Amino acid sequence: MTMIGKSVDRREDDRLLTGKGRYLDDLELPGTLHAAFLRSPHAHARILAVDAAAARQAPGVVAVFSGADLPEIQKPLAPKVMHPKLKDFPRLPMPPEEVHYVGEPVAIVVAESRYLAEDALELIEVDYETLPAVASTAAALAENAPLAHSGADDNIAVTLVQRSGNTDEVLKSAPHTLSGEFFVMRGGGHSMEPRAVAARFEPATGQVTIWDTTQSPHYARQQLSVIYEMAEDDIRVIAPADVGGGFGPKAQFYGEEVVVPWVAIKLGRTVKWVEDRQENFVSTMMERSQTHRIEVGFDDDGHLLAVRDYIEHDQGAYCAGLQVPSITTSTVPGPYRIPNIHTELYACYTNMVPTSSVRGAGRPQAVFAMERMMDRVAEYLELDPAEVRRRNLIQADEFPYRVGIMFRDGSPLTYDSGNFPKLLEGTLERLGYEEARARQERARAEGRYVGIGIAVYVEGCGLGPYEGAKVRLTNQGKILVTLAAAGQGQGYETVYAQIAADALGLDMEHIEVATGDTSRIPFGQGTFASRITATAGPAVFDAALQMRERLVDTAAQLLGCDPAGLSFSGDRATLDGDPEKSMSLLDIARVANIGKHGITLPVGIKPGIETVSYFAPERAAYASGAHAAIVEVDPDTGAIDVQNYVIGHDCGNVINPRLVDGQVLGGFAHGIGNAMYEEPFYDAEGQPQAASYLDYSLVSATEVPPVELFHMHTPSPLNPLGVKGAGEGGTIPAPAAIANAVEDALRPLRARIDRAPVTPARISDAVYSAVKG
Amino acid sequence: MTMIGKSVDRREDDRLLTGKGRYLDDLELPGTLHAAFLRSPHAHARILAVDAAAARQAPGVVAVFSGADLPEIQKPLAPKVMHPKLKDFPRLPMPPEEVHYVGEPVAIVVAESRYLAEDALELIEVDYETLPAVASTAAALAENAPLAHSGADDNIAVTLVQRSGNTDEVLKSAPHTLSGEFFVMRGGGHSMEPRAVAARFEPATGQVTIWDTTQSPHYARQQLSVIYEMAEDDIRVIAPADVGGGFGPKAQFYGEEVVVPWVAIKLGRTVKWVEDRQENFVSTMMERSQTHRIEVGFDDDGHLLAVRDYIEHDQGAYCAGLQVPSITTSTVPGPYRIPNIHTELYACYTNMVPTSSVRGAGRPQAVFAMERMMDRVAEYLELDPAEVRRRNLIQADEFPYRVGIMFRDGSPLTYDSGNFPKLLEGTLERLGYEEARARQERARAEGRYVGIGIAVYVEGCGLGPYEGAKVRLTNQGKILVTLAAAGQGQGYETVYAQIAADALGLDMEHIEVATGDTSRIPFGQGTFASRITATAGPAVFDAALQMRERLVDTAAQLLGCDPAGLSFSGDRATLDGDPEKSMSLLDIARVANIGKHGITLPVGIKPGIETVSYFAPERAAYASGAHAAIVEVDPDTGAIDVQNYVIGHDCGNVINPRLVDGQVLGGFAHGIGNAMYEEPFYDAEGQPQAASYLDYSLVSATEVPPVELFHMHTPSPLNPLGVKGAGEGGTIPAPAAIANAVEDALRPLRARIDRAPVTPARISDAVYSAVKG
Repeated sequence: MTMIGKSVDRREDDRLLTGKGRYLDDLELPGTLHAAFLRSPHAHARILAVDAAAARQAPGVVAVFSGADLPEIQKPLAPKVMHPKLKDFPRLPMPPEEVHYVGEPVAIVVAESRYLAEDALELIEVDYETLPAVASTAAALAENAPLAHSGADDNIAVTLVQRSGNTDEVLKSAPHTLSGEFFVMRGGGHSMEPRAVAARFEPATGQVTIWDTTQSPHYARQQLSVIYEMAEDDIRVIAPADVGGGFGPKAQFYGEEVVVPWVAIKLGRTVKWVEDRQENFVSTMMERSQTHRIEVGFDDDGHLLAVRDYIEHDQGAYCAGLQVPSITTSTVPGPYRIPNIHTELYACYTNMVPTSSVRGAGRPQAVFAMERMMDRVAEYLELDPAEVRRRNLIQADEFPYRVGIMFRDGSPLTYDSGNFPKLLEGTLERLGYEEARARQERARAEGRYVGIGIAVYVEGCGLGPYEGAKVRLTNQGKILVTLAAAGQGQGYETVYAQIAADALGLDMEHIEVATGDTSRIPFGQGTFASRITATAGPAVFDAALQMRERLVDTAAQLLGCDPAGLSFSGDRATLDGDPEKSMSLLDIARVANIGKHGITLPVGIKPGIETVSYFAPERAAYASGAHAAIVEVDPDTGAIDVQNYVIGHDCGNVINPRLVDGQVLGGFAHGIGNAMYEEPFYDAEGQPQAASYLDYSLVSATEVPPVELFHMHTPSPLNPLGVKGAGEGGTIPAPAAIANAVEDALRPLRARIDRAPVTPARISDAVYSAVKG
Repeated sequence: MTMIGKSVDRREDDRLLTGKGRYLDDLELPGTLHAAFLRSPHAHARILAVDAAAARQAPGVVAVFSGADLPEIQKPLAPKVMHPKLKDFPRLPMPPEEVHYVGEPVAIVVAESRYLAEDALELIEVDYETLPAVASTAAALAENAPLAHSGADDNIAVTLVQRSGNTDEVLKSAPHTLSGEFFVMRGGGHSMEPRAVAARFEPATGQVTIWDTTQSPHYARQQLSVIYEMAEDDIRVIAPADVGGGFGPKAQFYGEEVVVPWVAIKLGRTVKWVEDRQENFVSTMMERSQTHRIEVGFDDDGHLLAVRDYIEHDQGAYCAGLQVPSITTSTVPGPYRIPNIHTELYACYTNMVPTSSVRGAGRPQAVFAMERMMDRVAEYLELDPAEVRRRNLIQADEFPYRVGIMFRDGSPLTYDSGNFPKLLEGTLERLGYEEARARQERARAEGRYVGIGIAVYVEGCGLGPYEGAKVRLTNQGKILVTLAAAGQGQGYETVYAQIAADALGLDMEHIEVATGDTSRIPFGQGTFASRITATAGPAVFDAALQMRERLVDTAAQLLGCDPAGLSFSGDRATLDGDPEKSMSLLDIARVANIGKHGITLPVGIKPGIETVSYFAPERAAYASGAHAAIVEVDPDTGAIDVQNYVIGHDCGNVINPRLVDGQVLGGFAHGIGNAMYEEPFYDAEGQPQAASYLDYSLVSATEVPPVELFHMHTPSPLNPLGVKGAGEGGTIPAPAAIANAVEDALRPLRARIDRAPVTPARISDAVYSAVKG
């Protein structure tokens, strides 16, 4: 291993740093028409009539279609992760009859420019009959609540229950019990590049080429092949090499991805749609919003005996998949030994934009609830919060550790590896925990509110079903590594060249990486759930090992020597260092790939040097981490000063440390947003109240506090590279750590921090309630 | 084997017979510009200046480029089959300085329509300095001949010599020797669809998509990647599913294939060029033109002792490859035991359109010379021509038979299998040979000129280096077979589905076939030299066997049963006929290919069901055949009435008998053209004199005589299907058989038939010479 583990510069950086990145909107597709969507202004309404006559006459308009104009594609966008008991309401690409959230697409205008298309949107008359809406899980679960979907029995999409042991009994008999109610606000992905789709119909072949900022081109192709009733090879989905962020929402499949290519097919023209920021706020999926009513039972020493968590999950207007609720229920126990567990999650339909995975994906909420309770236990027993955690952490010799509940594939939830105590101690040490407690004491004596927050988490990642890679010796004598996975800035061109370089024993300069194009490799799943390094990584490694063997065997045949005597230097395989006995990659390609027309291959040469590997992990791997923060809070203004923040992170072996640091630190910024800033409010009628960055506080670099990051490397036994996922660990525990720190700071006032983000207003409320109470 | 060997209807027929075939010119590529080429009116000239100013101003003209305007692509189009001693003169895509044949491209006009482009061609002023030209091999080899290429030492491109035994000595000491001089005229491929190229630059990616009527998309891509200095994946070459004939000339690579895509890239526009019939006559490669001076030595019984053949080969203005001369030299010995062989071929540059393979590819000329001599030997010894052949044929128990000379890959020329005596006897029997001889006697007695001609041949086919196939279980539950090879009407969609069906044990309805797209499979060689069934066929068979195993293994895993118990019926694998224990192809695809997002694969399931196989034959296979004709000739008019024609054909095992019949009979029509009609005359200055169908007699259905075809099936031991090539056998011996029959008819007049085609004028000349002589 010479390249794996090195902080190689990203190959992508040159073009990205010099403004040469090419995003979907940069694609110059000749003759392109531009699309704009008319979106529902109502959270719940019946569409009585759409009159697009005036819009169709508007300057530059080529076509206008309402949902009713395209009945052939109004088929449900299937939930990604299903559950047999899900009460599913079909999410149609552009519903012709009833809309269920503000922002849902109602009609599309295709025009010579986006400006003209948007002008024409205003000429479309839609006659709506508004219907009652629900805009929170509380409202959704209330007695006689309005129904998010007309005709439903209630607003519950599904109830997910996990049980291990005998929680009810144990809680009854436990020496101590504590309970709390915690709420985590919605938050979005807010990728720099919003969603975008361009599609070109190929009249020559009846095929359609689709450029899509999706995280899952093969998933998009599969959905479209079902909806369009077209063969998979007639649909080519390309995720451009440069996509400006994904973070989960782009792993979902949206109506616009169905409508835009279909309109391109119907018109026989190239059509492009790029979501603008305003649309992104009301139509791109969000996440987070959950209420946890959690009760823990514990003994006099703070050992956890049982946990019960009733969870209200805001599914939004449709169920795009049950991955988030499933993950939440299995994340509650976290890094702790808990003999009795009962989680019960009510996924509720609400008339807001649907929710699905956003970086963290159901984990920040569970970690928030659990880690808040760990602090409450410590407070109750007058123990140090770090000490309570120490007493409950799963120990390094307990892996593989069966949590007691189930993973969503029906198998026992099993942590593969980790060292949680060492991670916690390392974090505390770097924070200067003891000194910080002393400083806290001094500050309190001065009437200042300094607090320390800790949060430890476990994160399922690197899960199945599979990813694959092809490795080809090109006719130019390069090694081309092809992944199905599409990156959104993670540095795939660099990371997978590093992995291949080690397997091949070749310098990276000879290795190229291609991603995200369904025409390049037939099968794939996509970039989500911090899974690609641990799935595509081993596939690349294996395919590259096979390639090495093919190269050496071919060179040995051509040189008439024993393969064992060959070594690679530069792009040449050389026998015992003899320059006369040497074949370059190009030499090998010329014989075995290019061949000579009408000439027989030399004896023993196998033609067509390409290898392929698909890797299907046995089960998910588990990354872990510990965050710790020191904050000072101004109880009058509610301002939080994060003075110190330490992240301990363990994602197993690391391919490129600098890129993992980037993932963790970027994720941390995201986590700080969830912890302190981001709030996409909806009013009680389901009208979004924070649909621009004037109202929605997105974290920028200046809001990110100083942070120290360190890594542990507990290899995963589940894949040959020993890697785990690194995309979400920076985000997951941040709201819990900040909330714990703030409550710890305000402990003299007995203010309770139960909601994230912990904004100045919430702090003021908490202080006011405590003081008043 | 249930489908292999069946005359299944062609899948292509429905669309072709109902006018729904889609050829390159049918491609509706939005925003297409149309190209036309200015071509040299001189056989040899220096370009002093090109003035395109007026053309650039012409209505609808977008751009005009002369060769000098595109210096970056003026790189040699490499000869396909090379020889170390070849004196190569670079064939440039659009030469900026000197042209070497009438029709060579000099400039391209790109305009809004082909009409406007052609109008503008007339406005381009080219100042030429004409240079002396040579327009025959005789002229090229004459003392003080003008030079086809300025600055050359002489007009000889290469001399190819093959020697076996001691021909000179044996000819000196042989009991009898005879010699003859034979000439075979040029002839073309004359596919119904001429050449065509369309190209679209993809500004989004810098890639270029090229639709090309080529027989070798991967070869075209390889050439372009070298000339354009682009990665192979940045060039996608698609041979449309419907191409109207190839016959060899489309297996070559032409300047237009370089210029049109390059101009599309430069302009960032889609550009299409479709060769018109007039261009086809002067710019698409031809073949045939050879002069053979052959001497044979034989004993009193007619046993051949030695053959020496001096061959002049017309290479045309450039060497596009030495395949034809190489094949000619190795085809001379044919099906006969000849202990001493000496062939010596002089490939000459002439100022005519370059030559390369046309159906038959150097074989008709060699067969013509050898088979004419067999008749002369018979005549000399007063033996029956059939009997002379019988005495010399290689016997069925002599395989593998080493001819004594070399194949062009440097290995000993070795026939794999055959039964030439049985083939000859079967042909004669069907012709009613004995009765025909009797009839000939009666006719002669009546003063009528009836003749019988026989020609036996051996044809190298199915040669390397390799072809490949991918077989995929699609997400729609179909089996997709992908070949690199591109068809031109041979029925690939049918034949390869038949082969796959047998390997898979599935009905053909579940199997689809895709061909001729470099983006679908990375490596391939192309359709030429009757090689695809014997190379891609075994690859498909092997990949499909692997697929069968993958399907059965996956179904067995899912059903929890022993794979051995499973059998396929329809699209389902069923255990012991129990409908409850059954998985459809779609069921299998859903698990192993589509997967479920975020769910682990069931234990034991291997994801990504695609298989691949490349087949590299050890050496070429040899098909064989015997043709026999009965003709009556009118010596006054030179008219030939072909009264009966029998073809005995052995291409080993047959996949689809009806399609092989189609190949042989179509090839026979082509052979009749070479035998009796086709003559692309050039005058002494290299000006084509038969550049339209007014002057060039292309065979139509009415000219094709009645023919009886029968097959023998001597399997090739060189591939698991036992198949050989069937594309050229109908053509190769026809000129020899007809010439033999005509000379036999005219034997009472002692007229000599030394030239093909045997036209009325040539018969009159021969009769006149004989009578005068």
